[in-house]
Amino acid sequence: MTRSPTPYRTLDPAGIRAFLAAQPALATRLGGQPDAWRVREVSDGNLNNVFLIDGPAGGVCFKQSLPHVRVDPDWKMPLDRTAFEAAYLRAVRPHVGNLTTELLHFDPDLFVLVVESLNGHVVLRHGLMQGGDWPKAAAAIGRFVARATFHTSPLALKFEASSALLAPFARNHTLTRITVDLVLTDPYHAHPRNHWLSPELDPIVANLRADPAVRRRVGQMQARFLTCQQALLHGDLHTGSVMVADQDSRVIDGEFALPGPIGFDCGLFVGNLLMHLFATPTPEGRTRALRDITQFWTHFRQDFTTLWTNAVAHSHSGDAYAAPLFRDDPTSLQQVQTQFLDAIEADTIAFAALEIIRRLTGYAHVADFDVIADRTARAARQEAALRLAQDLLAHPEHTSTVAALSARAADRAA
Amino acid sequence: MTRSPTPYRTLDPAGIRAFLAAQPALATRLGGQPDAWRVREVSDGNLNNVFLIDGPAGGVCFKQSLPHVRVDPDWKMPLDRTAFEAAYLRAVRPHVGNLTTELLHFDPDLFVLVVESLNGHVVLRHGLMQGGDWPKAAAAIGRFVARATFHTSPLALKFEASSALLAPFARNHTLTRITVDLVLTDPYHAHPRNHWLSPELDPIVANLRADPAVRRRVGQMQARFLTCQQALLHGDLHTGSVMVADQDSRVIDGEFALPGPIGFDCGLFVGNLLMHLFATPTPEGRTRALRDITQFWTHFRQDFTTLWTNAVAHSHSGDAYAAPLFRDDPTSLQQVQTQFLDAIEADTIAFAALEIIRRLTGYAHVADFDVIADRTARAARQEAALRLAQDLLAHPEHTSTVAALSARAADRAA
Repeated sequence: MTRSPTPYRTLDPAGIRAFLAAQPALATRLGGQPDAWRVREVSDGNLNNVFLIDGPAGGVCFKQSLPHVRVDPDWKMPLDRTAFEAAYLRAVRPHVGNLTTELLHFDPDLFVLVVESLNGHVVLRHGLMQGGDWPKAAAAIGRFVARATFHTSPLALKFEASSALLAPFARNHTLTRITVDLVLTDPYHAHPRNHWLSPELDPIVANLRADPAVRRRVGQMQARFLTCQQALLHGDLHTGSVMVADQDSRVIDGEFALPGPIGFDCGLFVGNLLMHLFATPTPEGRTRALRDITQFWTHFRQDFTTLWTNAVAHSHSGDAYAAPLFRDDPTSLQQVQTQFLDAIEADTIAFAALEIIRRLTGYAHVADFDVIADRTARAARQEAALRLAQDLLAHPEHTSTVAALSARAADRAA
Repeated sequence: MTRSPTPYRTLDPAGIRAFLAAQPALATRLGGQPDAWRVREVSDGNLNNVFLIDGPAGGVCFKQSLPHVRVDPDWKMPLDRTAFEAAYLRAVRPHVGNLTTELLHFDPDLFVLVVESLNGHVVLRHGLMQGGDWPKAAAAIGRFVARATFHTSPLALKFEASSALLAPFARNHTLTRITVDLVLTDPYHAHPRNHWLSPELDPIVANLRADPAVRRRVGQMQARFLTCQQALLHGDLHTGSVMVADQDSRVIDGEFALPGPIGFDCGLFVGNLLMHLFATPTPEGRTRALRDITQFWTHFRQDFTTLWTNAVAHSHSGDAYAAPLFRDDPTSLQQVQTQFLDAIEADTIAFAALEIIRRLTGYAHVADFDVIADRTARAARQEAALRLAQDLLAHPEHTSTVAALSARAADRAA
């Protein structure tokens, strides 16, 4: 019996109900009759349709690619992005467990992804904007990045395995093109997609664009993003890609997954925490934002190092820094680990700066600064964030650690 | 009509004759009747069967993968290596022209590759060992590497194109495994495949293995080889992969092709010129070896820079160091070029050292030192080469340029 492919169509709530009802495992998870299921649209990102479906027994989260950017139907886009998200979940879930969501179903014809529904979670960005506090979330995300990247790198794997694991993600051209254009290129020259709080920020934007040291560092980070394939990245790890509850933090939305430099995932997360820091009106909020940056980075670095040390000790490490060379020399292992993680730290700082600049002057802005009602005050905060970002790129030697970055950001955001 | 695949079999001279006769274009190139063709085996590398076939009208070179290492039938090996060589020729030939050979035919069932036959050329390594001099060869190989790597990198290509071009070569697992093991790992710990001029070199080999700074740098270069995918590499660019005649130099044997750091190709070539330098008994020979190192590096660096500058000026450059950022700022472009090429230079020096060490203490040795009949003298030369290599790895800060490397090598080889 050959399977006849379902032609793609965008499912409406009735279609979603029918789709889920046809999958016994999903119908059982929801329980009761399809008519009793509550279907709510919660699309929040720029790209896809997202619905939460609740039945008497439980809930699921339904995500479907659209043939265009959700927020801009004229911007046509291939459908394959949910396939990359499903592949990312399959690749990292064994290593990160409940730091992400469980993949329940993927339909390659409709490009529908169904994952477990989270209960009582909020999007971290929204929660932070409302003054919420999740003291363990940033540490959890640090652990997530450490595990997801270490275990997909040739530090952990024989190169045949890491290469085979990364290869399909190197075909994620559509979303990687968005990153290359919107994050790494467009904000540094005149492009119709760019916009900012004008005229207030006109001078700083002009200054940034005219700074040759910024452009040199941006060029270098473009090359690093495109050639340094250290591990499988999430690729879009901002605070809108994290769901939090009291004792639970989850990374979602892995559709941008690609092989790349580990500092890119770290930098996007740190950059978004920095924007929250600059946008937060209260000293307590700023103290918490600085704590989160420290927690994220400390846990990432510690966990990554521990995973690596254990792998070498048990000789199940990969072909990079191969175990036979380091097994009996813990001092040397520690030295190469420091060097490797210092390089990730430098990347993190640079990518954090790129993220700030593109979120304030490029195409897709963040909502964090909307909490500042007064336009002049908002512009001043944004300008302070942009000035810091410019200095991080133009003078990397001034800020060589995330701790130094936090200290400088604390001064400027006070 | 479906094509019925020919089952693989290793062709003997009669089989080769029949194979070529069945390809009209090849038969025409050879001319006359198959019986009149002269078939000579010239297998020289460790892996494949190679024959030269001459007819009344012209000649071809025939290469076939064996299901094992040619020089070790117990070492089984998949046949796909000639497929990678054919793909490499297709990828680089448009950019390097007659700096390599023309692909005339590839048979994916028999894993037979047929390329143009070179007339009056010798293998550069053999030629150098016999005291020959090809004053233009090293510059030509520098140009070859510049063109083959620049044009397959995201400096020249949109990332979708570079990624699609590199992806198939990331599956060259068999030969990459050889490099990872034999070049980058085995020589640094006890492994049954290792051997050296013993007992004379026992102390230096023990010293090298016991040096933690060497192991740290080796680990770092393992990671760089496996994660830094700057361009398509030849992957085995030693002096045995170069054919020379008076006014003509050709790179052959691209079966190790893989995405990797550009300094790997440069480093293998420089490392082999260094070994020739240390093995050469005459001052004139040493002067020429030093000239060749300088010529290779100068031409590589100049040509790579010029290709890059022209691409940016004409806005047909790639996504790394994107043209909109550098088109109107030649000073910044020059600065990032210097930085990028300095990093390749550091890689070149480290990979040259790794090549020397593996060729004197690992599995596959080079013949260069065989010209020294006296065993004690030979050991002294090899020891001097190994001491330099050790210092290059343990103290990269002592030797940051190829010019400095040449000066140090000249002192030690005198």
